[in-house]
Amino acid sequence: MKFGGTSVGDVERIRRVARIVAAERKPGKGIAVVVSAMSGETDRLVKLARDAGGESANGPAAGGSGFDDEYDVIVSTGEQVTTGLLALALRQLGIPARSWQNWQIPVRSDAAHAKARIDSIDEKGELARSIDAGEVAVIPGFQGVTAEDRITTLGRGGSDTSAVAIAAALKADRCDIYTDVDGVYTTDPRIVPKARRLEKISYEEMLEMASLGAKVLQTRSVELAMAQRVPVRVLSSFVEPGEPNAGTIVCDEEEIVEKQIVSGVAYSRDEAKVSLIGVVDAPGVAADIFGRLADANINVDMIVQSQSRQEGKQNIVFTCPDRDAPRASDILHAAHEKIAFDELHIKRDVAKVSVIGIGMKSQVGVARTMFSALAAKGINIEVIATSEIKISVIIDSQYVELAVRALHTAYGLDAA
Amino acid sequence: MKFGGTSVGDVERIRRVARIVAAERKPGKGIAVVVSAMSGETDRLVKLARDAGGESANGPAAGGSGFDDEYDVIVSTGEQVTTGLLALALRQLGIPARSWQNWQIPVRSDAAHAKARIDSIDEKGELARSIDAGEVAVIPGFQGVTAEDRITTLGRGGSDTSAVAIAAALKADRCDIYTDVDGVYTTDPRIVPKARRLEKISYEEMLEMASLGAKVLQTRSVELAMAQRVPVRVLSSFVEPGEPNAGTIVCDEEEIVEKQIVSGVAYSRDEAKVSLIGVVDAPGVAADIFGRLADANINVDMIVQSQSRQEGKQNIVFTCPDRDAPRASDILHAAHEKIAFDELHIKRDVAKVSVIGIGMKSQVGVARTMFSALAAKGINIEVIATSEIKISVIIDSQYVELAVRALHTAYGLDAA
Repeated sequence: MKFGGTSVGDVERIRRVARIVAAERKPGKGIAVVVSAMSGETDRLVKLARDAGGESANGPAAGGSGFDDEYDVIVSTGEQVTTGLLALALRQLGIPARSWQNWQIPVRSDAAHAKARIDSIDEKGELARSIDAGEVAVIPGFQGVTAEDRITTLGRGGSDTSAVAIAAALKADRCDIYTDVDGVYTTDPRIVPKARRLEKISYEEMLEMASLGAKVLQTRSVELAMAQRVPVRVLSSFVEPGEPNAGTIVCDEEEIVEKQIVSGVAYSRDEAKVSLIGVVDAPGVAADIFGRLADANINVDMIVQSQSRQEGKQNIVFTCPDRDAPRASDILHAAHEKIAFDELHIKRDVAKVSVIGIGMKSQVGVARTMFSALAAKGINIEVIATSEIKISVIIDSQYVELAVRALHTAYGLDAA
Repeated sequence: MKFGGTSVGDVERIRRVARIVAAERKPGKGIAVVVSAMSGETDRLVKLARDAGGESANGPAAGGSGFDDEYDVIVSTGEQVTTGLLALALRQLGIPARSWQNWQIPVRSDAAHAKARIDSIDEKGELARSIDAGEVAVIPGFQGVTAEDRITTLGRGGSDTSAVAIAAALKADRCDIYTDVDGVYTTDPRIVPKARRLEKISYEEMLEMASLGAKVLQTRSVELAMAQRVPVRVLSSFVEPGEPNAGTIVCDEEEIVEKQIVSGVAYSRDEAKVSLIGVVDAPGVAADIFGRLADANINVDMIVQSQSRQEGKQNIVFTCPDRDAPRASDILHAAHEKIAFDELHIKRDVAKVSVIGIGMKSQVGVARTMFSALAAKGINIEVIATSEIKISVIIDSQYVELAVRALHTAYGLDAA
């Protein structure tokens, strides 16, 4: 079971989490709980670290400074406190419990302080024995220790990944991630009131959903769950302990009997479309363009290349976050001599809408349904990109809600 | 170097401590720094622990509950944060530094959570190598790890002891304890403006001074320093970095060339004198009386036994903290059948005044000077007790200041 910062935001909520754990407990069922820092605590600790170390003590976003090892020493105490508090709250309910710090297990990570990745969990059996003996194990998420026994943090939000890694190491039947939503929905319920909670979704679909802005689980945790074949359940931490709380199970495609053609409709706003018209059609040009953008840390998403009307020339269209568009423009203009192109157009305020579904693999006509539904609403498609389980289009961002609603209906996802 | 909670009370003060450490640094001199939690932090964490665990999650004073292991997990984060912050502040000054948590060294303690004692420091050489390489080691005081790798705390104020233990393990030349006073004084300067800072004091004298209320260093840290022969220097954390700050060195008697007959005058108020008159003079009676008081956790200090005028009977007089006097009376009255006594008198509001000095061992007439000085001021002595390096008397508490001033003058301690 994993509880995030809001779920353990104060002592009253931690006592509530203890009651949720208590309700899950039954003979023969061992439980490990991974917790975040109390909400606000990490920010407080980061601020202290910055004040002490001056401007060079960077947060996880900047990373890589010579200060990050001590930053991790400071920030990791946030989760440590929560583990102690939850263990106390569980004992107060008469449930045997103890905290396990990452160095006590140990959970090994690489040495990339402030943005480390878990390498392995070298549990020698002590933790498993304690859980088998009926003791609830309470473990801080978001951190590890290097081979040299120094404390690392995984970067913000790494607790989901910690939970999946612990579940895999303990060969758990399931990893339950408690969040502020009650599951994964067919689309954003704020846009489509008829959005439905999915009972099950495959890892692959979840990955597409997550990276498209339906941020329920972190991408890395889903990748790890998929690699380790750990079923993950996303469920609400606000349902009363003991009350029905089915959530959504993220699992192997094989375990989903009724495969939907389309499981969900995702969207992301704040994209920009960059069009390079009349680029010389020579080997290495695309590599050059996208190399320059990558060096500037601009995250390019969809890329479409097509023949230009002019012979020996091509058009290259790509999308990137809207805030990066001016920089992308500058970089390309600056390299104009090297990357000869006739025109550069940037269209800001576009949005990406995608339909996702593993059923798509074995189904024809899925794309046509999408294009027809959008055309019926008079929405123009600017770019199209497809993968095995996803079709994405770029449209004018003012039509996002309309498009999402139309597609949700067109693929039969509306709740009865 | 050891800095307490007030010295590291906020980030600005931690940066100041970094400057003090920087001023001490020179080629060939390795430095380890032991730090407390930022002042107020331990209280905050204790409150969280109590709120989470309910009334049974006792602080160190109560101790011994089944909750103290997790209490230690929570509270120990206070010092961990300070170590990271000080390491950052040192690096900001260009000084190589890193934090060492107790489990990384490791500092082993027994498993008496919330009031543990350090057993041993099993430093394998890594810490020493880092210090030899010029890196300042920043270590959290007040804690350790058990043989099972669980976090312990030494009970409040245990940081002095941590510092001495680390100094001993590293075979340090000296352990500098930075406090809010600039050294050990011949007596309380609030009472005697002519009190002088001592340049040196022996461990034995310091122990007598500390337990008598001149609380500059914790008793346990002095005992450990004496056992390990670590010279300890007490000095001010408020002197500007680099300015003269001699403090007082607590060291072996042998290293004190000019031995004072009396080094200091200590006092403690809020004592009570309990007199049992006409107790039957039989073996085991004293053991019975003081056994009952000990069982009730009443801390008996001076005990004087004398023959009664009545044959076969004796008088027993003892002192205890004034607040415990009513309970002591109840216990003795309740046991009246067992401990036959004729009368029980309790005199509250008495005080203890002591003169302390290793020079006393080889000097006669020291007690006479004391009694004469007090008699000259018309102060009546109610009880006398002596040890090798200390003479204590009980007097009416209204005369405390007068007595301390008279003795300070009588033993030639007044500053010129």
